[in-house]
Amino acid sequence: MNLLVVGSIGIDTVETPAARRDNLLGGSAVYFSYAASYFTGVAIVGVVGQDFPPEHRKLLEERNIDLAGLGTAPGKTFRWSGKYHKNMNDRDTLDVQLNVFGEFVPTVPPSAAAADFVFLANIVPAQQHKVLAQMKKRPRFVAADTMNLWIQNARADLDVLVRELDALVLNDSEARMYSGVHELLPAGRAIVAKGPKTVIIKKGEHGALVIAPDGNFCVPAYPLEAVVDPTGAGDSFAGGFMGYLAAQGTVTPAALRRAVAYGSVVASFTCQGFSLDALRKATRADIEARFKELLEMARIPG
Amino acid sequence: MNLLVVGSIGIDTVETPAARRDNLLGGSAVYFSYAASYFTGVAIVGVVGQDFPPEHRKLLEERNIDLAGLGTAPGKTFRWSGKYHKNMNDRDTLDVQLNVFGEFVPTVPPSAAAADFVFLANIVPAQQHKVLAQMKKRPRFVAADTMNLWIQNARADLDVLVRELDALVLNDSEARMYSGVHELLPAGRAIVAKGPKTVIIKKGEHGALVIAPDGNFCVPAYPLEAVVDPTGAGDSFAGGFMGYLAAQGTVTPAALRRAVAYGSVVASFTCQGFSLDALRKATRADIEARFKELLEMARIPG
Repeated sequence: MNLLVVGSIGIDTVETPAARRDNLLGGSAVYFSYAASYFTGVAIVGVVGQDFPPEHRKLLEERNIDLAGLGTAPGKTFRWSGKYHKNMNDRDTLDVQLNVFGEFVPTVPPSAAAADFVFLANIVPAQQHKVLAQMKKRPRFVAADTMNLWIQNARADLDVLVRELDALVLNDSEARMYSGVHELLPAGRAIVAKGPKTVIIKKGEHGALVIAPDGNFCVPAYPLEAVVDPTGAGDSFAGGFMGYLAAQGTVTPAALRRAVAYGSVVASFTCQGFSLDALRKATRADIEARFKELLEMARIPG
Repeated sequence: MNLLVVGSIGIDTVETPAARRDNLLGGSAVYFSYAASYFTGVAIVGVVGQDFPPEHRKLLEERNIDLAGLGTAPGKTFRWSGKYHKNMNDRDTLDVQLNVFGEFVPTVPPSAAAADFVFLANIVPAQQHKVLAQMKKRPRFVAADTMNLWIQNARADLDVLVRELDALVLNDSEARMYSGVHELLPAGRAIVAKGPKTVIIKKGEHGALVIAPDGNFCVPAYPLEAVVDPTGAGDSFAGGFMGYLAAQGTVTPAALRRAVAYGSVVASFTCQGFSLDALRKATRADIEARFKELLEMARIPG
């Protein structure tokens, strides 16, 4: 397995202005791995409780996602409940029940310990670090996500972690918070100064700004007719991004730009349904078609 | 004169989180014409009061902006005062004194009545319409800006006007308000259905989304180290956009994309100072350099 992700596997309750759904399959590692599976083999390191429904596991297995690192612990699966504002961008977290995820210590299975590409999805930085410590060799490309909670409450651990990263992926408000700088270009550069050579700032419907050693760049989001549920869009973006890179094997400047565009495209499918409902229906050909459309939309003739 | 703009000429007071400046040269026609003057000759239709400082007039004349249509009326010049929020994007209007602008009826001077390119900056739609009625022939390309006030209070007049436009330029919140649709792609298409073949949705620091007959496209904003004052950025964008198009003479699909990129670039200079302070210092070579940078940032290798 060439791509490893550590992150959450959860049961979500999501309320949007249009609808409410209970007991959805969610979690960063789920969205990431499903998105990445269009491009490459991917292994999950995570934990679920004894209540985790077998049909959810089956959904991942059908995509050949390696679940050797998915432990089952006594107790219940992580649960998250959130409600989106009318703009479908801001949301309030209504409830979090960590359950078995509260005691989670990642264990990398032998089948994944030599992965060249590693994504540390948004969990506490000290645990992200433990995954790296278990790799047989320094992976070719390590990226991580983080969140406001760790920037505020675990900054020292985060600072240690980011020194070991090739790329940090975070959203615009997190980039501002972590750097203390409002404009995103200098904010991204301030984060690059902390260690990661590449910083990917996600801007939701506005796409992504990337600070990269071979030149900064912007990739638009794939514009949608309607957003049903943006939950998991950021993790799907990361999955498409890392999945494409892992499939290439090497991270060239051109591959980096294309990978961000594939991330945007995969995230757009996720937004069109609750949980994995819409992404599941997408084929690799659907992804290629949107990728070509996105390239055409971004094209400025010189 | 091949490009005509009708709009406001004003004296602004601007407060940002960092500074406050009084008695600045402002107004949509001022920012537009100064931006456009880098590309082509441009004529202003507008009005000032007897208090309009001669040095402001001189600043425009030095760029060879045609002021034959700039009337002086008894009374005081239009005044606007605003305060920016910490995010430098949202702002509160603190005071508006229409003064001579309240009675303004545009009169197109003979020197500009045959212009092929016309921009109707943000004034009441019925007055925008009067400019078109005075043109000797149907111009090759007519674009207009509008605002929330007219969308809410002069919608019928706006609906009549947009039927005659080639392009409508408006910001994201205005596009949502005018279309009643939240997602920007269908919002833009709903506005296209009202008449203009092209709709340019400005998203501030996130660039622009363009709904166009030969394919929709996105152009990023030129990312800045710091924003000093965004007042006039939208009008400068329109000026760079229309100025470039007027200089080409014809509106090809490729020219449309390049024109939006030039608009973004010129707007970026405006944001780097109060009033015209930063844009004034930019040379055409500076604009070309940023245009090339923007193209390189937007490039996604296929």
